[in-house]
Amino acid sequence: MNIKLVLKLVGRVLLIEAAALAVPLGVALLYREDPMPFLTAIAVVALCGFGLSALPAQSRFFVREGFVAVGLIWIFTGLVGALPFLLSGWFATPMDAVFESCSGFTTTGSTILTDIEALPKGILFWRAFTHWLGGMGVLVLATAIVPKLGIRSHYLTQAETPGPVFSKLVPKQSQTSKILYSMYFVLTALEVLCLKLAGMPLYDSFIHSFSTAGTGGFSNRNASVGAYGSVTIEMIVTVFMLLFSINFAIYFLLITKKWREALASDELKFFLAVVFGATAVIAVTNLGTYAGIWESLRYTVFQVASIISTTGFGTADFVMWPQFSQLIVVLLMFCGACAGSTGGGMKCSRVLLLLRAIRREVHRITHPRSVEVVKLDGKLVSEATLHTLLVFLGAYVATIFAAALVISLDGQSFAVSFSAALTCVSNVGPGLEAIGPVGNFAGFSGLSKGVMSLCMIAGRLEIFPILVLLSPSTWRKT
Amino acid sequence: MNIKLVLKLVGRVLLIEAAALAVPLGVALLYREDPMPFLTAIAVVALCGFGLSALPAQSRFFVREGFVAVGLIWIFTGLVGALPFLLSGWFATPMDAVFESCSGFTTTGSTILTDIEALPKGILFWRAFTHWLGGMGVLVLATAIVPKLGIRSHYLTQAETPGPVFSKLVPKQSQTSKILYSMYFVLTALEVLCLKLAGMPLYDSFIHSFSTAGTGGFSNRNASVGAYGSVTIEMIVTVFMLLFSINFAIYFLLITKKWREALASDELKFFLAVVFGATAVIAVTNLGTYAGIWESLRYTVFQVASIISTTGFGTADFVMWPQFSQLIVVLLMFCGACAGSTGGGMKCSRVLLLLRAIRREVHRITHPRSVEVVKLDGKLVSEATLHTLLVFLGAYVATIFAAALVISLDGQSFAVSFSAALTCVSNVGPGLEAIGPVGNFAGFSGLSKGVMSLCMIAGRLEIFPILVLLSPSTWRKT
Repeated sequence: MNIKLVLKLVGRVLLIEAAALAVPLGVALLYREDPMPFLTAIAVVALCGFGLSALPAQSRFFVREGFVAVGLIWIFTGLVGALPFLLSGWFATPMDAVFESCSGFTTTGSTILTDIEALPKGILFWRAFTHWLGGMGVLVLATAIVPKLGIRSHYLTQAETPGPVFSKLVPKQSQTSKILYSMYFVLTALEVLCLKLAGMPLYDSFIHSFSTAGTGGFSNRNASVGAYGSVTIEMIVTVFMLLFSINFAIYFLLITKKWREALASDELKFFLAVVFGATAVIAVTNLGTYAGIWESLRYTVFQVASIISTTGFGTADFVMWPQFSQLIVVLLMFCGACAGSTGGGMKCSRVLLLLRAIRREVHRITHPRSVEVVKLDGKLVSEATLHTLLVFLGAYVATIFAAALVISLDGQSFAVSFSAALTCVSNVGPGLEAIGPVGNFAGFSGLSKGVMSLCMIAGRLEIFPILVLLSPSTWRKT
Repeated sequence: MNIKLVLKLVGRVLLIEAAALAVPLGVALLYREDPMPFLTAIAVVALCGFGLSALPAQSRFFVREGFVAVGLIWIFTGLVGALPFLLSGWFATPMDAVFESCSGFTTTGSTILTDIEALPKGILFWRAFTHWLGGMGVLVLATAIVPKLGIRSHYLTQAETPGPVFSKLVPKQSQTSKILYSMYFVLTALEVLCLKLAGMPLYDSFIHSFSTAGTGGFSNRNASVGAYGSVTIEMIVTVFMLLFSINFAIYFLLITKKWREALASDELKFFLAVVFGATAVIAVTNLGTYAGIWESLRYTVFQVASIISTTGFGTADFVMWPQFSQLIVVLLMFCGACAGSTGGGMKCSRVLLLLRAIRREVHRITHPRSVEVVKLDGKLVSEATLHTLLVFLGAYVATIFAAALVISLDGQSFAVSFSAALTCVSNVGPGLEAIGPVGNFAGFSGLSKGVMSLCMIAGRLEIFPILVLLSPSTWRKT
């Protein structure tokens, strides 16, 4: 393990984070708020960054180092990102600040805050900005870096599956990242513009656009997007939540006018089918809760988009919905968005491939002589890829139950412990009962908050980097 | 699809069931109870059996026919087994009787009865006897029939995995079944004897021994095994619940004095480790609930053995335990017993192989050049076997959530809907909250009871026979 080089990389990312902290500092100065939390944080983070990136290191770098680096980058980023929160004095304990920061960078959006609107504008800006940075980070990781490392497909992207993969479309690494950044910028800017035009204050427009882009969910309003009471704003946010849940490679195909290839994506079709299907079924189920089908549709489509995109914004408290609707919400949390997007969850393509693998198994029994393969976008999915995918799904569900076990030490109900673990691993935000859209995560113990923070990172990085970090064999001398 | 031959097979099993109904008829006569429910049921079942087994059929029989036959046999057995219940007048609706019968034959042990002790002795005998028949049925299916069909290992047994497999040990099919029957008889008789000697009435001894043998859980007492208040009885039942959860091939190895081979079983070690680990952790967690460590151990070890063996007897209401203990109980419900036993759940060997597959995946990342294989009992597990196993686990979890979705239409809490689906698919018996060890399944709708009955059968037959039955491709002409 070339730990020095890994820490050097961590140092470089911390330097970027120190630079990023200048943005909320500017916001704090603009609103004449205390700049000290940010100034101190910038000094500490920059110092750590310089120290680590100055480490003398050999250039030996293998896949193992890559996984450890990715894991440690997210952990360190989460830890030092908590500094402004902690220094602001608005967070009761260091663990609370770390939880909020991890929730930000992993684009989860679960909060321990009980009265968001009381906080300074600079702090709330940083909170949403971590979503935006985290979303960009995971996007570049998934679409540009990982496929180049030659790691098998369970990991963050579809490197070996036949779906559209960014790095296959754009040959040069530097070019890939540049195009991605541009698309991410343009889509975010477009949302800011739309929200401003729809009557949202400019500051709020930035906050909500950052949160949408990262599919995070932090709002500067206690009632989240519901606070504006505007159908237009809700529809704009709905559309952008869905846009940021789609594989960015598809946008590249659209830009390069490969329409047919873009629209042939099985994952996209599956994603849209789930969104429409879930919306229709829940809207009908919720008829008793709302005054008529249109009101039911209005609140349902927003919540469905918010959950499947793993954003977590709210305009309605789905904990008050019928149990049937809530169970669909739980299933959407498992499913999540498309691969190669900023969204979390198991990813639509994986759920689709699992269903196809089950169907093939049945077909093998009924037609034992036929040789059937599992396909995506009309192309063969290798057995090795299917294997890593199935192991990933097993590890995903096992992680959720293991985390729920620790969280249950707090003595909260089964629904709370389970949904807390699920929403953190899937990077969604809200859970069931006490931690629903109107609730918050303040009531958990420090241990639970720590485990949930690690779960958010594990989920964001698709489990294996954290398993590699925790595995003794990683640290053994070779 | 050679449906005539399949129905012919179903008919033969119904004839066996008609003969089996003579036993509770005898009990009813012995206790001078109304024999009519049994006489009528025997007439109807025998008539159906004769009719179906007289069907003219070609002898074409493939794996597909085998799966459909297994599925239909369990469905028909469950349906006609409900006749005595329905005719007795003690069950409110036909669906209630079918639920109880399916719960019996699948050795689940969930009940819709609120006052068990009010029922006639003959009916309660039939109820427990269905467990014993179902347990023997699944044992013969798993250890004698399926491995001979050459079906891959996801299905009920470890046909292709290196663990001890009965049919590999005993070459002749007829001999295999005979040895199995003998072992099942002897173990059951031994438990009857032990319970009688410990002071349990003979009738009750039979009931509880039948339930233990099938790892079912039906008792003739409202308070289940707890009604006797005897530590000796509880320990006897605990030991036998664990004995019936172990792969019967291991007993064969012990009988033939292959000690080393028997004790080298990875699954057995894993099973015992889980039993001891869970008991220790829960006993300590429950210290606040009980007066001292011995009382805590007494109730914990019984409940742990009852759940992991998927029996479902109770001496304590685990719904009153701390949430942490309850979550371990939920995990035990997923895990279940050993393959090749009468117990349900995912099976210990599969959970173990999933954990090993995850560990290999991590090892592949940290040591990309080494070729690592997954082993069980020191022998290689083929990639094809691992694949079917992982697909099975995916289908298992998907079935539980799909069933929970339908059950949630009843409007009960998430914990109830989820645990109802889990306990039925894993053939355990009790669930969480309202359907805990002290509760019952009477409050569910007819739809939910129907779905749960199908889930019990699907779980008992390890999902795929029911998927094959429901798949349109099975019924298409070839």
